[in-house]
Amino acid sequence: MSYDYQAPLRDMRFVMERVLDAPAAWRDCAAFADLDADTAAAVLEEAARFASEVLQPINAGGDRQGCVLGNGGLQTPAGYAAAYTAFVQGGWPALPCSPDWGGQGLPLLVDAALREMLSACNHAWNMYPDLLHGAYETIKAHASDELKARYLAGVASGQILAAMALTEPQAGSDLGQLTTKAVPQADGSLRITGNKIFISGADHDLTPQIVHLVLCRLPDAPPGTKGISLALVPKLLPDGSRNTWAADGIEHKMGIHGSATCALRYEGATGWLVGEPHRGLAAMFLMMSSARLHVGLQGLGHQEMATQNAVRYALDRVQMKAPIAQHPAMRHTLLRLQALTEAQRVIAYRAALALDTAAHHADATTRQQAAWLGALLTPIVKAFLTHHGFHSASAALQVWGGYGYVQDYGIEQTLRDARIAMVYEGTNEIQAIDLLQRKVLADGGAALKLLLAELDAEARRCAAEPALRDFADALHTQCDAARDATASLLQDQGGLRSRTLNVADDYLFGLSHTLLAWAFAASARAALQEPDTAWAQAKLARMRYGAQWLLPAAAAHWQRVRTSTLALPEVNAAS
Amino acid sequence: MSYDYQAPLRDMRFVMERVLDAPAAWRDCAAFADLDADTAAAVLEEAARFASEVLQPINAGGDRQGCVLGNGGLQTPAGYAAAYTAFVQGGWPALPCSPDWGGQGLPLLVDAALREMLSACNHAWNMYPDLLHGAYETIKAHASDELKARYLAGVASGQILAAMALTEPQAGSDLGQLTTKAVPQADGSLRITGNKIFISGADHDLTPQIVHLVLCRLPDAPPGTKGISLALVPKLLPDGSRNTWAADGIEHKMGIHGSATCALRYEGATGWLVGEPHRGLAAMFLMMSSARLHVGLQGLGHQEMATQNAVRYALDRVQMKAPIAQHPAMRHTLLRLQALTEAQRVIAYRAALALDTAAHHADATTRQQAAWLGALLTPIVKAFLTHHGFHSASAALQVWGGYGYVQDYGIEQTLRDARIAMVYEGTNEIQAIDLLQRKVLADGGAALKLLLAELDAEARRCAAEPALRDFADALHTQCDAARDATASLLQDQGGLRSRTLNVADDYLFGLSHTLLAWAFAASARAALQEPDTAWAQAKLARMRYGAQWLLPAAAAHWQRVRTSTLALPEVNAAS
Repeated sequence: MSYDYQAPLRDMRFVMERVLDAPAAWRDCAAFADLDADTAAAVLEEAARFASEVLQPINAGGDRQGCVLGNGGLQTPAGYAAAYTAFVQGGWPALPCSPDWGGQGLPLLVDAALREMLSACNHAWNMYPDLLHGAYETIKAHASDELKARYLAGVASGQILAAMALTEPQAGSDLGQLTTKAVPQADGSLRITGNKIFISGADHDLTPQIVHLVLCRLPDAPPGTKGISLALVPKLLPDGSRNTWAADGIEHKMGIHGSATCALRYEGATGWLVGEPHRGLAAMFLMMSSARLHVGLQGLGHQEMATQNAVRYALDRVQMKAPIAQHPAMRHTLLRLQALTEAQRVIAYRAALALDTAAHHADATTRQQAAWLGALLTPIVKAFLTHHGFHSASAALQVWGGYGYVQDYGIEQTLRDARIAMVYEGTNEIQAIDLLQRKVLADGGAALKLLLAELDAEARRCAAEPALRDFADALHTQCDAARDATASLLQDQGGLRSRTLNVADDYLFGLSHTLLAWAFAASARAALQEPDTAWAQAKLARMRYGAQWLLPAAAAHWQRVRTSTLALPEVNAAS
Repeated sequence: MSYDYQAPLRDMRFVMERVLDAPAAWRDCAAFADLDADTAAAVLEEAARFASEVLQPINAGGDRQGCVLGNGGLQTPAGYAAAYTAFVQGGWPALPCSPDWGGQGLPLLVDAALREMLSACNHAWNMYPDLLHGAYETIKAHASDELKARYLAGVASGQILAAMALTEPQAGSDLGQLTTKAVPQADGSLRITGNKIFISGADHDLTPQIVHLVLCRLPDAPPGTKGISLALVPKLLPDGSRNTWAADGIEHKMGIHGSATCALRYEGATGWLVGEPHRGLAAMFLMMSSARLHVGLQGLGHQEMATQNAVRYALDRVQMKAPIAQHPAMRHTLLRLQALTEAQRVIAYRAALALDTAAHHADATTRQQAAWLGALLTPIVKAFLTHHGFHSASAALQVWGGYGYVQDYGIEQTLRDARIAMVYEGTNEIQAIDLLQRKVLADGGAALKLLLAELDAEARRCAAEPALRDFADALHTQCDAARDATASLLQDQGGLRSRTLNVADDYLFGLSHTLLAWAFAASARAALQEPDTAWAQAKLARMRYGAQWLLPAAAAHWQRVRTSTLALPEVNAAS
């Protein structure tokens, strides 16, 4: 059985059209007024072909070959450059970019499905274009007209690739410690000097031109995060000469071997300020936010890849006189994988739809509320989906038994690749703090209230349908738990910042289960309305499995949130 | 900060002497009557030196170099053969073997601590000698006097290494399907023909002689597992010539690269029957049972290695103006890792102590009861400890952030190495079925009752100590949950074999939490009696953290066991 990818186009359409009713949302946005469901589906069919026919075949080879940094520059694995040329020719980088800059102006929701497929088929390759959209948004919103004229259309079309240069050896999660210097020059440019590490796609052979968005400090910068500026630093200067930065080395990593992770030395490199001086983090925010959604979609892609292959293998492999898919332990594993993957697709796509609404809806209040919702969901999508991207890949590996541990079967690569997504673009622990402190508590629970109102409405709709009562009950239980825990945290908030930090991870996982309960219920209700009875019944059964077997795990998270007023002991070396 | 190993000798002594009072148990066994705590501790100090000074330094290199199968035979990584020579010279293979065969006659409990250290420092290298003790027990119990005379002393001393040849391509978890043939010859030998896969240490350059214990079928064998025989097949025949089997290839695996995992071709190879015809599985049982305990100890070793290094790194790495060990999310991670590792050490060592008592206690009833307890604990130790070997390594990796994903820091190798232990020697799902069906339900819950009586007694002792009331309560709660769930399953057992298969994994995890609750309580009580107040207070705090924060997860497992009367739906490909 070869490790292969069959794009889940049917489920993607089901989620977009039946569960989320995205076409109705598009009709309320002038930018998408001409878009209909069939057109979007046709785009995804093409995207699926690209992902499975061009990217998937070079995934295992890229893992074995890795990147090489030699005298001729940085070489990506065989087939990577040709695949990228095809990607640009297909117009894929420009999918969600504005027609003003040569883009196709499609919703982020459609782009999200594209990203899911690219990550599923070849996470390492996808690292190169995955930051383009965030770079595009950042340059469009914050760069000068001159920089825009020079770089924006190229970034939108993908002819210029982009990298995000944040991390320094002493400054990982703590960006306030970064020291890269930017000295203004008479001609309005900056001279950038400093070292960065872990910069994905900082150099490669896919495009001649690469732009770095670099966090740095101006000479008069205040210390900490309030003194960070953002600079655009290209590989090739406007006169065609090579800018003075170098990739010093590439990391040897557990996975995504085809993605060049560079250590960079900026030696008086030429760049230009993007946005206001000392407001670099705010300018970078668009890029980070887009990147976090994309990283969540990587987790979803890994789960889909692991799940569909495990299911095919288990239906085929006979042990004890039956396909192993029929053995109860394997059945649990597979149903769990399917229920999780499908429900998380609903959650991720809901986040993308919120961002589309926030950007394009005719009504200002609707836009504002959608923006809150998108901001609330983004750290959940990043952390919860990447957590399961890794852990579901591990659960799937178990289905292959010993074969799963061997390179030839593909799943161990998925597992290794998936692990990075829990770390980069802000560790999952950072996401949990962002969620609880900035997205839930900072506005007194207002954004969460909006979310829970939407979930309550779904519970009411399910309660009205006799076949869906159990889904309604489960969703009610989960919503109440989220509401109670949040109320208790809001009450305490004055003195107990340490308590929120104490329980942030459990809060994120608890609320993720609330969203799972919603996704199970909404999917079940939509399935009842599907004409294809066999497909709909199977969907319903998977969602019911999820509601019955996966939601009980939420209770421990909420219990820990409730009983968390105790201080944690100090950590010491044990012996 | 280099990735390093400091043997947890203090905690090992604490568990053996204070928590389990092993020296008292040894006094009841004639074989160990001369052994005292200080002698055992001195042995472990030497073992720690070997593990950390000889094995740990060649761990990362072995991972990068891997094994090579060439014309000159199978080459292990640099330093492996020399380390093995030192291991044999140190007398380590013979530690738990009988003095009758040149062994040192030490308890399995002491050997367990040795195994933990070897696995922590170099899992791949440890694969070669890890099967020796099981092979020794199997040959000693089942082989003819002639075979014993020829091989047993060599296996006890480690001058002969052993491999266990079970798996065939079509027969993974389902050994009944295996087809390797054994044809009896006039001289009493067998001619073995067939193919095996995934055979660890089947060939290598550590010792000239290697013996395979091979599952095979005699010509008159009934089908299925009742027709399987066991043969001993050496690499070198008694006349010094090379036997007719060949390593056809080695697997390229996710981890344990230094361990040769071979595909084998037996081409009329010469071997001899071990045990009765068609009773090969029963004869192999001793080897498998020993191997399962050892694999559990690998999981423990991985956790110790990951935990102590994560703690040292987190105490050293400053972000946001404080060592990251002080940040609540990291504090949770580290306390969780420490509490889990230390409690699992108690559980694993308890299992080893039970096996020692079963083999050597003066009283027959005590021996029998200890044997039941050892048999009950073995699948838990295998599955639960390897589950956390992998998942704790992943949690620890998160402490390093991006550095954790890079080869140079060691933890990603621990993560990759640890993953195999959930699969081999019977997948963890197979362990769960073994636990519930064979160890708990088959005797009507008698063995479990013995275990719970021991746990109840600990709860009573803690309840009498005001400072330990919370531990007593937590342990009571967990014991009751285990008792209720087991009673309900015993009641149903007639018609509902499918239900037990349905809930076996949750049952194993639920009961593992019961044992965690016991380990937290027993360790806390022992800590109160320690003279070193600072160490004791830190221990108590970690155990209390475990009882407060880790035990709530048990409820979801028991809830799923209770509500599991529903049949699971069929698994289908989703789209």
